[in-house]
Amino acid sequence: MIDGCPPRVPLEVEEIQAELDRRRPGQSHLTTPRQEEDCAQILSGVFEGQTLGTPILIWVQNKDARPSAYDQLKDVYRPSHADFTYEAKYGIRNWQGGGRASARETVGRVAAGAIARKILRLAGFGEIVGFVSQVHSVECKLDAMQVTREMVEASITRCPDTEAADEIVRRIDDARGRGDSLGGIVTCVVHDPLVGIGEPVFDKLEAELAKGLLSLPACKGFEIGSGFSGVKMTGIEHNDAFYEEDGRVRTRTNLSGGIQGGITNGEAIVLRAAFKPTATIRLEQETLTTDKKPTTLEASGRHDPCVLPRAVPMVESMVALVLCDQLMRQRAMRISDDFNDRSS
Amino acid sequence: MIDGCPPRVPLEVEEIQAELDRRRPGQSHLTTPRQEEDCAQILSGVFEGQTLGTPILIWVQNKDARPSAYDQLKDVYRPSHADFTYEAKYGIRNWQGGGRASARETVGRVAAGAIARKILRLAGFGEIVGFVSQVHSVECKLDAMQVTREMVEASITRCPDTEAADEIVRRIDDARGRGDSLGGIVTCVVHDPLVGIGEPVFDKLEAELAKGLLSLPACKGFEIGSGFSGVKMTGIEHNDAFYEEDGRVRTRTNLSGGIQGGITNGEAIVLRAAFKPTATIRLEQETLTTDKKPTTLEASGRHDPCVLPRAVPMVESMVALVLCDQLMRQRAMRISDDFNDRSS
Amino acid sequence: MIDGCPPRVPLEVEEIQAELDRRRPGQSHLTTPRQEEDCAQILSGVFEGQTLGTPILIWVQNKDARPSAYDQLKDVYRPSHADFTYEAKYGIRNWQGGGRASARETVGRVAAGAIARKILRLAGFGEIVGFVSQVHSVECKLDAMQVTREMVEASITRCPDTEAADEIVRRIDDARGRGDSLGGIVTCVVHDPLVGIGEPVFDKLEAELAKGLLSLPACKGFEIGSGFSGVKMTGIEHNDAFYEEDGRVRTRTNLSGGIQGGITNGEAIVLRAAFKPTATIRLEQETLTTDKKPTTLEASGRHDPCVLPRAVPMVESMVALVLCDQLMRQRAMRISDDFNDRSS
Amino acid sequence: MIDGCPPRVPLEVEEIQAELDRRRPGQSHLTTPRQEEDCAQILSGVFEGQTLGTPILIWVQNKDARPSAYDQLKDVYRPSHADFTYEAKYGIRNWQGGGRASARETVGRVAAGAIARKILRLAGFGEIVGFVSQVHSVECKLDAMQVTREMVEASITRCPDTEAADEIVRRIDDARGRGDSLGGIVTCVVHDPLVGIGEPVFDKLEAELAKGLLSLPACKGFEIGSGFSGVKMTGIEHNDAFYEEDGRVRTRTNLSGGIQGGITNGEAIVLRAAFKPTATIRLEQETLTTDKKPTTLEASGRHDPCVLPRAVPMVESMVALVLCDQLMRQRAMRISDDFNDRSS
Repeated sequence: MIDGCPPRVPLEVEEIQAELDRRRPGQSHLTTPRQEEDCAQILSGVFEGQTLGTPILIWVQNKDARPSAYDQLKDVYRPSHADFTYEAKYGIRNWQGGGRASARETVGRVAAGAIARKILRLAGFGEIVGFVSQVHSVECKLDAMQVTREMVEASITRCPDTEAADEIVRRIDDARGRGDSLGGIVTCVVHDPLVGIGEPVFDKLEAELAKGLLSLPACKGFEIGSGFSGVKMTGIEHNDAFYEEDGRVRTRTNLSGGIQGGITNGEAIVLRAAFKPTATIRLEQETLTTDKKPTTLEASGRHDPCVLPRAVPMVESMVALVLCDQLMRQRAMRISDDFNDRSS
Repeated sequence: MIDGCPPRVPLEVEEIQAELDRRRPGQSHLTTPRQEEDCAQILSGVFEGQTLGTPILIWVQNKDARPSAYDQLKDVYRPSHADFTYEAKYGIRNWQGGGRASARETVGRVAAGAIARKILRLAGFGEIVGFVSQVHSVECKLDAMQVTREMVEASITRCPDTEAADEIVRRIDDARGRGDSLGGIVTCVVHDPLVGIGEPVFDKLEAELAKGLLSLPACKGFEIGSGFSGVKMTGIEHNDAFYEEDGRVRTRTNLSGGIQGGITNGEAIVLRAAFKPTATIRLEQETLTTDKKPTTLEASGRHDPCVLPRAVPMVESMVALVLCDQLMRQRAMRISDDFNDRSS
Repeated sequence: MIDGCPPRVPLEVEEIQAELDRRRPGQSHLTTPRQEEDCAQILSGVFEGQTLGTPILIWVQNKDARPSAYDQLKDVYRPSHADFTYEAKYGIRNWQGGGRASARETVGRVAAGAIARKILRLAGFGEIVGFVSQVHSVECKLDAMQVTREMVEASITRCPDTEAADEIVRRIDDARGRGDSLGGIVTCVVHDPLVGIGEPVFDKLEAELAKGLLSLPACKGFEIGSGFSGVKMTGIEHNDAFYEEDGRVRTRTNLSGGIQGGITNGEAIVLRAAFKPTATIRLEQETLTTDKKPTTLEASGRHDPCVLPRAVPMVESMVALVLCDQLMRQRAMRISDDFNDRSS
Repeated sequence: MIDGCPPRVPLEVEEIQAELDRRRPGQSHLTTPRQEEDCAQILSGVFEGQTLGTPILIWVQNKDARPSAYDQLKDVYRPSHADFTYEAKYGIRNWQGGGRASARETVGRVAAGAIARKILRLAGFGEIVGFVSQVHSVECKLDAMQVTREMVEASITRCPDTEAADEIVRRIDDARGRGDSLGGIVTCVVHDPLVGIGEPVFDKLEAELAKGLLSLPACKGFEIGSGFSGVKMTGIEHNDAFYEEDGRVRTRTNLSGGIQGGITNGEAIVLRAAFKPTATIRLEQETLTTDKKPTTLEASGRHDPCVLPRAVPMVESMVALVLCDQLMRQRAMRISDDFNDRSS
């Protein structure tokens, strides 16, 4: 359910489906073998190919749900999963599939993200290109600014560096064979963003982006621009010198990652998100039953040995949703443009 | 102005002042020589030593403001500062001191954080201990779980590793001498948090913490638990095995950083925040005037060559504010505890 | 979609269905002959008879929708309907049934309201009893405090005064016969509310109640306690004198309507909401086409000649939803009760 | 503290002061003799005569506060005041002046309202004209649409009907003499509002207006357009027929009060708010002490025998604040206008 979408945005269900297909389980041998076809239907909020400005309900039925597959999890806490914390927080838990703690909930984010991306594109933003920049210790060697969506989609790993991609396939196959799992990093670039987007002080753009990404399942870290590597630089090395180009204010470097003081400066937004290895693995693990008795767990079920390839559309979607929200807030704040002469 | 503070929290202005003193400029030779004594007065919301449940206005006058010191900045964009983006966003900018983009705004966060910390302590949370774990390439070698507030406050660097602290002093002195600046990392541990705090899916605790920290000036990165280093581990290495201890559910390791599925599991919350080197430096830099003409800037003014020592109370405050908000939301959600028998 | 519902609230779909049946079209000859059976299914958020604390999706399919019935409305603005304003606001409008401006949207409010009522009952609130206190010029003569749900449900008019009810039936039948419509007033009493509910200053309980009711289709007025009639009283007549009864603080009169300073004082909450006559009528009316040409409209379709009988569960639901929200906010604010000794 | 004000709104402190002077105690012999000069200073958010888009802090010191005047109220609950409910809700209460339950808090609303009015005027809204339309049983006989601000300000009663105004003066003088108080009604008209303002379904414009007004101290009722009197009309009498005038869609009557389906239709917004007689009176009243012992109270202190003249700027301010907020939300929603061709 998407509330707050502007009216008169041209929208076809195929645009949503295209993004869902990138997130869909079973899209390659690297992902979970669950066959969720994730077919989207728009039930409200769109009329004759345009959004109405009223809530949009998108319906994605899970036709491959197997609640019985979770029977073994009724009385046991999966390590590094949310079973224990949900039970502690709510005093009750639906053990038949992870409920809201299942990464399946990201289907909604990606569907909404598809609409947000459309709005950003129409509003003048450039492309949002996410890609797998690391799996385990295998790193993508390409310059993030040069990566295109075509390069990303060329590999089932969504790593655009073909050499690294081959090694990633081997590592994931190996992890699956052992019943283990791997983590990694998604890098995301927003090309040519509008200038002036972001709502200081508490809702700075990087703050909202960090929140959006850390709300994704398995995300453990976030960087904007230079991120953690920037701490080893000095001020003179890190500052992005301003210059003029074609009448625009530009910066020589972009260690700020396109955001200064919480607001876009027009340079590309560059961010990275770290994802831990999937918690559900086949290997035997020590854990507790729900009545706190020691036990061991060898999870069966159909799980991704590495979520990274499917995480790319999730990251892009969260970035798009945050930007779209901030774009609308910026437009509200600039109501005075509707009645003031601009002299700047 | 703090709205939403619960009533009947015992509160003395000295508790707020103590935290402000840790954030205060001029507290050591490492920081800006500006002498802002940051003396707090409570103007509303507290009566006879207790909060009233109504808005608390805390008044901290800046007695060492020197607007004229900013005259040179009227017509020039400071590199990696918010001058350009504020002007682009709002179409107007107060150039006399940075306004809301000045780190001076964090005085409000630290004042509010002092109250949040008090509430958390009364509610049963353990101590919140932040410390400088890295400046430039100098790393603190101590185990974060062993660091106490006393150890942190023993050094003007707020790095509890005395050897590293000495080197940090040297590096900062050197950077100041050159007119340059340094960045670093603050690590923060919340000991013995209550279980069940955090509001999935969009307001997961790690998401709110990430937002809180990235909203701080100069913050460029955030990690919870294993963070970016976790991507080089496999699932079996990374999962935190559950065991029982004194009737409590505990984990053998804490790579989750105390949060699973967006909710506290009772283990220590461990996070890290990266801060870039201070943008305002004396070294000459290429930049533009506000009418887009090339110029150079050698910033005078009284600035911190390294914000890290003063960033520690800011980080702790944001962590406390986020936790306090989530604690209150959790209590609202558990309204059913007031009428249900608990059987768990 | 109901987000923010507390966990561990016992809930059966029948409890929701019972309220939907009171709102349902076609329940008596007084209402629209549309046969929407409004059968509720719970698709998420409830597990083994208890809420999970996660979003609750309730699915109510409209099996009697007839989009073609709206063909005549494609190019014409119905007077006192939202056709023109939706088009003006959004630049687009779904003319096939009124969309979000149709009173059909209240099915969601009543479903959510059923859950809110359950929570309030468990939390210790008394019954919420709404009734039709006026239709056109026919007034219910009973004391609102004496009206019970049984009395209300005894008549298809939901007016508990049998004499008035008979006259209301006649008036509605007559209006339908003429192709005209009638308005009226719903009075609602919340018996024995908890003390201390309401969030001054901007979210005072009466303010939230007023918002909730005025957000209902066709609602044009709201009164709490003495309302408009109180303006003809003097202070000494209007003030509710305090006295003690069984250890409780009580008031001799209740012109405050149970709320003082935005907060419940424990006396019954008494409010009234005015509903205008239904806008869709068969009588010929002057209006404009969407290209601003004069035309006339004689609306066909299956509409209520008077919404009052069906408005009762809507009003009760909005009252319950507001109270439930404020109850949870109050509980969050009283977090200090969890750690303070109460001395009062 | 006003957050969310758009940047580049021309603003002088005198514009705020002018509205504060209309709310100020002691402005005529009809109001409280308290001499609060309510002198406004702008401490942040405005620079060189324009708003910055950052929070605006307006400082209004109360130089005539006399906490000792409230000593008699420390241990007693004033009837129909918030003493008891604040204590019940918060477990603590500042008895020295009513705190947040004092109508003094409306000084902030009127200051903010002055800015909102400025924005609305610049955005193209017509004048907002509030006036006293009733005190006790004395009614203003003028057509609300004909009342101008000049007519309102011509009388210390703010009732533009000179005959009624004279009688109102007599009644208020009489009530004060007896130690009693009076209530009344404020009518408010927003001339020539923009079309398309309001956010259905939950935040319909009339819903937000109702909330805004009911959040004012002593407000007990709200009507939009025909309000309660509309219930005695039939559909054909009540519907506002559309016609075309100078290319605009107009309505022959305006029983809708300028709002249809929660959204402005361009006709004048007409609303009424009922205020109860002031609770603080000199006459002896039955009440309880804070330890629930019977007592009587004859309130001394300096109170308004009738708040109506001072309520006019409060009502206008709340209307302006709601409209300004909704205008900004509308602008955010119409982001698609920035990239779509308008064909309508």
